[in-house]
Amino acid sequence: MELKIAVLPGDGIGPEVTAQAIKAMNAVALEFDHKFTYKQADIGAIAIDKTGNPLPDETLELCKASDAILFGAIGDPKYDNAQGNVRPEQGLLKIRKELELFANVRPVKAFEALIDQSPLKRHLIKGVDISIYRELTGGIYFGKKETKEDGSYASDLCEYSAEEIERIAHLAFKAAMGRRKKVTLVDKANVLDTSRLWRKKVTELAKSYPEVTLEFLYVDNAAMQMILNPRQFDVILTENMFGDIISDEASVIGGSIGLLPSVSIGKKYALFEPIHGSYPQAKGKGIANPIAAILSAAMLLEHFGLYEESETIKEAVERSLKLGITTPDLGVKHERITTSKVGDFIADFI
Amino acid sequence: MELKIAVLPGDGIGPEVTAQAIKAMNAVALEFDHKFTYKQADIGAIAIDKTGNPLPDETLELCKASDAILFGAIGDPKYDNAQGNVRPEQGLLKIRKELELFANVRPVKAFEALIDQSPLKRHLIKGVDISIYRELTGGIYFGKKETKEDGSYASDLCEYSAEEIERIAHLAFKAAMGRRKKVTLVDKANVLDTSRLWRKKVTELAKSYPEVTLEFLYVDNAAMQMILNPRQFDVILTENMFGDIISDEASVIGGSIGLLPSVSIGKKYALFEPIHGSYPQAKGKGIANPIAAILSAAMLLEHFGLYEESETIKEAVERSLKLGITTPDLGVKHERITTSKVGDFIADFI
Ligand SMILES: CC(C)[C@H](C(=O)O)[C@@H](O)C(=O)O
Ligand SMILES: CC(C)[C@H](C(=O)O)[C@@H](O)C(=O)O
Repeated sequence: MELKIAVLPGDGIGPEVTAQAIKAMNAVALEFDHKFTYKQADIGAIAIDKTGNPLPDETLELCKASDAILFGAIGDPKYDNAQGNVRPEQGLLKIRKELELFANVRPVKAFEALIDQSPLKRHLIKGVDISIYRELTGGIYFGKKETKEDGSYASDLCEYSAEEIERIAHLAFKAAMGRRKKVTLVDKANVLDTSRLWRKKVTELAKSYPEVTLEFLYVDNAAMQMILNPRQFDVILTENMFGDIISDEASVIGGSIGLLPSVSIGKKYALFEPIHGSYPQAKGKGIANPIAAILSAAMLLEHFGLYEESETIKEAVERSLKLGITTPDLGVKHERITTSKVGDFIADFI
Repeated sequence: MELKIAVLPGDGIGPEVTAQAIKAMNAVALEFDHKFTYKQADIGAIAIDKTGNPLPDETLELCKASDAILFGAIGDPKYDNAQGNVRPEQGLLKIRKELELFANVRPVKAFEALIDQSPLKRHLIKGVDISIYRELTGGIYFGKKETKEDGSYASDLCEYSAEEIERIAHLAFKAAMGRRKKVTLVDKANVLDTSRLWRKKVTELAKSYPEVTLEFLYVDNAAMQMILNPRQFDVILTENMFGDIISDEASVIGGSIGLLPSVSIGKKYALFEPIHGSYPQAKGKGIANPIAAILSAAMLLEHFGLYEESETIKEAVERSLKLGITTPDLGVKHERITTSKVGDFIADFI
C-alpha cells in the first residue's frame, strides 16, 4: 500500500516522539512491503515563531493533500499568558475545524506491565479497557467569544446542533457494537440545555442499536466513577469540554499518559496524535516517552486496514514494556534509555 | 449564643442525615449552653411533589429570616429525564442565586482512619489537605439557555464579570493566608475568553497578597494532577462548572464522599451541605453516612466563631471513625450500624 503522510511534529517533545513513530512505520514498510512517504510542516508555537501563524496555509494544504496526518504536540509556555490573539493552541483548534475532525477517539487501557505504576490500586485498574469518543469541533470551544475592552466581562457560548451530536454518536454506538456493547453518555443534563439536547438525540438514535446498552452519567459523577470504578466503562461518549477533562483524567489511571495514542476523525481526514502534550520541560533531553506516538502510528495503520502491521507495532511495544526498554517515566530498570533508543528497539523488533 | 437555623432536608437520604446533624448540634447546645432553634422547609423533588415548585417562596423566606441554612440533598431519579422546566436541581440553583451564595467551599482531607479505603495508593493520599473555592452563582450554570423548538439546536452561555471573579478570589487568597499560602487557579485559558478574564483578574488581585504563591493549571491537567499528586494543592480556585467536576473528583480520593461537608457563602447568608447527593437508592435504608452532614454542622458552628464547639464535633467524628462506629460504606467492622446509630454515638460523645 502507498500512503502519503503529513507529519506535523509541532512543539516541545513533539519532534522527538514523532521521529520514533516514523522509525516504526519505516520498519513496517520494509517488513510488509509498503510505501510510506512523509512530508513535514509546521504547526503551533514553532509555526508562530517562523511565520506568525499557528497554522500556516501550506500546512493545511499539505494535510488536505495527504492520506493521513501524524501529529506531535503543540504548546509552549512562552505563550501561556498571551492575552493576544496568537496562541499555539489555535493551530490545533483550527486544524480540527478546517478538516472537520469531529470525533476524537482515545483508547484507555491498563497495560499489565504498568499496573503498579498506576496511582490507583491494582484491583481497580486491572482489566480497564475504555474507548472515549469526544466531540471535537463543537461546543464551548468554537462558540462565539466575547471580552469587553475594559476587562469587566467575558463570555463563551456553548452550542450544539442535532447533527453534530448524531454524527459522533453513530461512531460511538458502532464502536460499542464491536466491543462490550455499552455506551455511557457523559453530560450535565441537570443544568445545561446543550446536555439535554445530547440526551434527547442520543436516546433517539440508540433505538437503531438495540443491542447496545445506553447509560447516562453527569460529568461530576463521571469524574468520580473514573477513579472509583473505571472498569464499569466501555464506550464513553461526550461533548468537547467534558471530553477534554474526563479523557485526561482517564489517561493517567493506566499508569502513564506517555503510552496513550488517539485519533481525530472526520468524514475525509484523520489525524493521529499521542495524547500527552508538548511537555516543554523535557524537550531535547531524550527522556520523552515515544510509545504514545508509536501507538498512534499503529492506529494509523489500523485505520487503513493494515491490521497485521498494526499488531506488529503493538507487540513490539508490549515487548519493550516487558523488558523495561523504556524511558525513565516508567521507572528505571536498566541504565538511562533515551527516547531514540526506545524507538530503535521497537523498530528493530518489527 | 442563639441561632435560628433553617433546615432544608430535601430529597433522598437528605432527611436522614440532616436529622443526625441536628442531634449533634443539640448535644453541643446542651453541653455549651447555646440556644439553637430549627425551622424546616421543603426544597427539590419533595417540594415539586407538594407544591409544583422546587423552591417555594416560604422556603426562601425562611432562609432569609434565619442565621444559617442546614441543607440535606436534592434530586430524584424520577425527574432525571424531565425535559420540561421543573426539575429538583432548580431549587438548589435558585437558592444559590437568590441568596447570592457565590462561593462554595469544600475541604478535602485524607482521614488517617480511612486512607486504606481510598482508590488511590496510600503514599499519594496521606496528608492531603485541600480547600476548594468554587464560584457558584455565575458561569455556564446561569447564562442564557436556548433550545430550538424543533430540537435541532441548543446553547448555553458562559459569562463572568470581573466583580464575580474578584469577590471569590479574595476569599480564596484570604483562606490561603491562613493555610499553606498557595492558590491554584484552575481554568481553560488556552481556549476560553472567560478563563482568560479569570487569569487576568486573579493575577492583578494576587498583588495584594504578596505572600501567597499563585499557580495556574488547565482544567484537563488539574483532573490528572488531582490523581497523580493531590498533595501539591493547598487552595484551589475555579469557576462554577470546573469546580463542580474537580471538587467531585477530589471528593473521592480521601476514601469516602460520605465524609465531606461544604459551605456555600455569600455576603449575607451561608448554607451548609454535605457534598454527597441525594443517593436515592439508599433512601430510608439506614445505610446513609451521616458524617458529612454532621461535619457540615461543625462548619456552621465555626462560621459563627464557635470553634471549641466545632472541634468537639470533629473529635466525636474522629472517634467514631477510629472505633468503626460507622455506616457500611466505610467497611464493616461491627454489626450493621445504622445512620441513626452513628448520629447517636456522636451526639453521646459530645
Ligand atoms: C491544547 C488544547 C487546546 C487541547 C484541547 O483542550 O482540546 C488539548 O488539551 C487536547 O485535549 O487536545
Ligand atoms: C445538583 C447539581 C445542580 C449541583 C451542581 O452541579 O452544582 C451538584 O452537582 C453540586 O455540585 O452541588
